[in-house]
Amino acid sequence: MYIVILAGGSGTRFWPLSRAALPKQLISITGDRSMLQRTVERILPLNPKRILIITNHLQADETERQMQLYDAVPIDVIAEPVGRNTAPAIGLAAALIAVHDPSGIMAVLPADHFIKNEKKLRETLVFAGEAAGKGYLVTLGILPSRPETGYGYIEAGMDSDGQGPFPVKRFVEKPPLAEALRYLEEGNFFWNSGMFIWRADAILEEMESFMPSLHEKLVQQLPVGQAALKEHIAALYQDIDSVSIDYGVMEKSAKVQMVPVEMGWSDVGSWSALPEVVEPDGNGTVCINAAGHIAVDSSDCLIYTDRKMVATVGVHNIVIVSTPDAILVCDRDRCQDVKKVVEQLGTAGLTAYL
Amino acid sequence: MYIVILAGGSGTRFWPLSRAALPKQLISITGDRSMLQRTVERILPLNPKRILIITNHLQADETERQMQLYDAVPIDVIAEPVGRNTAPAIGLAAALIAVHDPSGIMAVLPADHFIKNEKKLRETLVFAGEAAGKGYLVTLGILPSRPETGYGYIEAGMDSDGQGPFPVKRFVEKPPLAEALRYLEEGNFFWNSGMFIWRADAILEEMESFMPSLHEKLVQQLPVGQAALKEHIAALYQDIDSVSIDYGVMEKSAKVQMVPVEMGWSDVGSWSALPEVVEPDGNGTVCINAAGHIAVDSSDCLIYTDRKMVATVGVHNIVIVSTPDAILVCDRDRCQDVKKVVEQLGTAGLTAYL
Repeated sequence: MYIVILAGGSGTRFWPLSRAALPKQLISITGDRSMLQRTVERILPLNPKRILIITNHLQADETERQMQLYDAVPIDVIAEPVGRNTAPAIGLAAALIAVHDPSGIMAVLPADHFIKNEKKLRETLVFAGEAAGKGYLVTLGILPSRPETGYGYIEAGMDSDGQGPFPVKRFVEKPPLAEALRYLEEGNFFWNSGMFIWRADAILEEMESFMPSLHEKLVQQLPVGQAALKEHIAALYQDIDSVSIDYGVMEKSAKVQMVPVEMGWSDVGSWSALPEVVEPDGNGTVCINAAGHIAVDSSDCLIYTDRKMVATVGVHNIVIVSTPDAILVCDRDRCQDVKKVVEQLGTAGLTAYL
Repeated sequence: MYIVILAGGSGTRFWPLSRAALPKQLISITGDRSMLQRTVERILPLNPKRILIITNHLQADETERQMQLYDAVPIDVIAEPVGRNTAPAIGLAAALIAVHDPSGIMAVLPADHFIKNEKKLRETLVFAGEAAGKGYLVTLGILPSRPETGYGYIEAGMDSDGQGPFPVKRFVEKPPLAEALRYLEEGNFFWNSGMFIWRADAILEEMESFMPSLHEKLVQQLPVGQAALKEHIAALYQDIDSVSIDYGVMEKSAKVQMVPVEMGWSDVGSWSALPEVVEPDGNGTVCINAAGHIAVDSSDCLIYTDRKMVATVGVHNIVIVSTPDAILVCDRDRCQDVKKVVEQLGTAGLTAYL
């Protein structure tokens, strides 16, 4: 199996810890390894034939540096000159694999997700690989544990057995709460994980049907050698559209199937997701990387520091993040607005903090 | 005129900026100079005969260091071996002055107050010095600008002209709000500033009447030489009681008079006093020493940082303090509980943060 890791995310939602050149996937939120390193390590037991990491030119150096830990593993870091959403990145990876191994099975994994039960992920990839081998485009659906309104959903046709693969009825955008509650009750709705398994030729074939212009560019003769390849990619990205694989292929193809999985998954979408990743203390507070925390009548805070002592007095439901050059204090229910801070820093020309 | 500066405060209310060895008076909250340095500088135009700074042994070195700026001025730093409140400190200073100049006039000033109109302070000290020369114990009463419940009050007999000095009817402890409102309306109540002007022999005489045991120890023959004096003070403090000058003398003496003054005074008692010292911005926020502040739907915050960029999102009425090793996030109405943080750090043995 080939592993394609999508590692091109920008660094706005975890500001000030994440930055443009050091986005979420390249930092450690919970431990020693970065999210990307953990993504690599959790699939190493599958002995992948090759790992392709699709990143962007700003983050390529740091990505290469972080991959030095795994020098016995065949890893290629491919830098996009500009981000064009997931379809071009995945298509490029498929084209690169197809040169040598057209029917090779590739698993596409985001670089910045948290997965508690990593063994379950590997088992699921192997299981899904069987359907992929038959030519299906398999997507992993996460068994929902709450009526989350921040995720997209997949509605599955549940006429197979409990393990799947199931046919997919439709993809649903982030729903309002009432809708999300109904999904949870109905039992055949799953969180759209953004993880896929398919044969390189299968996804290229569907791209040919639904994204012919992109497909045409992707299947041009690929040059040999790193420098030539880099130039080829730069030219390729000059005039391709920004399209997601969901919109470009998955919502249109008849070959899509879904494999359900329950593995303690979180996309760690903002600071407010910390409790999905680190168990809160008795006061509902998560405190990461602090020298200590003194809480006087405080609760439900999310704290990440540069090894400082933290004291909270009379505050509740607050996010506190401290890095060597910046501090964020944010209402826990307003974490989606952290990107506004990054926007304002940009507008003010304070590029040192981006 | 002699100036006696009481500089023995501990560092709990401005944690984490203030520490045991670096309390409020030795740090700068608003500018380049420490509160003590500003206290010294604002009385230098009076050409004091001598400045006596009473501090404690933990803070003596840093106090000496900060006084090196004024090496043309006769300054003595006197370290108490233990804090025994204001009466022993003031009595010791009076005894030291009385050795050479029994009728010398001494002004007693706290080291950690903020005064906007410094010229007015100097004029008031000179004016009050006239009454002091006649043998009165003069205390400065601050014209109250709001029904503050955090200060003690002085009730004056208003049968003199508007400048004073007025006789003092009584000293009042921190009042409840209804009481404070009444004081403000009645017009003859003033904030107890803790600033005094009197002759050295006058205060010693009243101490002889009302604190005879302390007086007896103070008027023992003082030895010559720094080392001998230090030993003498160490012995002196072995068995003296902790008593405030208010309780020990001012509330009992018939010689007390009050001079009113309006000079933009604040005792800067906690982080919540910052707006008395630095003008808030249009959103009610005071931001000191930050590289910048990005406010997304935030207001009325008090921010002090170690030169970091600060972003606030959806938070209001919050105190944020960052130092190289610690962070405080506190409800602005709970600043008096910052001392609980210091207590808990002590209980936990985290002495590095005290």
